[in-house]
Amino acid sequence: MNRDPRSPCPIATTLDIVGDRWTLVVVRDLLTGKKRFSEFLDSPEGIATNVLSDRLALIEQAGLVTKAPYQLRPKRFEYTLTTKGEDLLPTLQEMSRWANRHIRGTWTPPESFMAKKIP
Amino acid sequence: MNRDPRSPCPIATTLDIVGDRWTLVVVRDLLTGKKRFSEFLDSPEGIATNVLSDRLALIEQAGLVTKAPYQLRPKRFEYTLTTKGEDLLPTLQEMSRWANRHIRGTWTPPESFMAKKIP
Repeated sequence: MNRDPRSPCPIATTLDIVGDRWTLVVVRDLLTGKKRFSEFLDSPEGIATNVLSDRLALIEQAGLVTKAPYQLRPKRFEYTLTTKGEDLLPTLQEMSRWANRHIRGTWTPPESFMAKKIP
Repeated sequence: MNRDPRSPCPIATTLDIVGDRWTLVVVRDLLTGKKRFSEFLDSPEGIATNVLSDRLALIEQAGLVTKAPYQLRPKRFEYTLTTKGEDLLPTLQEMSRWANRHIRGTWTPPESFMAKKIP
């Protein structure tokens, strides 16, 4: 992730940034309103703290989120998606449709998530 | 990949199968007509032979492709997407739109790829 692009292919380039098991899970959480480290940790997938720290740093570096402190001692941050980050919504909606169609037992996301449009 | 689902979330479940840097690059090649090991190796990303073997076995196990021999000595296979595999097209189209919008220098896929619809 975040290495030099392997090719100018837009699919390969996207995967250079978000092609792993965790990054888009964190983006999902951000799209559904989570902002804080402890909130991401609470998600049912059980992301490890070191993996979460790593992915938050990578997506900040890639321009998908910005962070701002909400507490000073100890310093803690809230993360907010940029337009670039929010624009991953249609990709996540299509992944959801795919899994709902092909993988038995997957949750159907709320209509508020599936019908949401990027501006 | 292909471990037990981390949660019933359709996004996490999709990433359990295709959440890595290479799998969807191979699916892209299959969607654009490539079928053989040597054709996947020829793609500009330069996938390593061991990574390619590994991903082909994983996507066969996940039901995204079937394989059939086209040559017997030595035995060589052609890979064909199943409906489950072909249905990843909208996800790849949205990844392409995202990269074209946000990552400078990415190729715009041919209209034949972007306008293609799954049945």
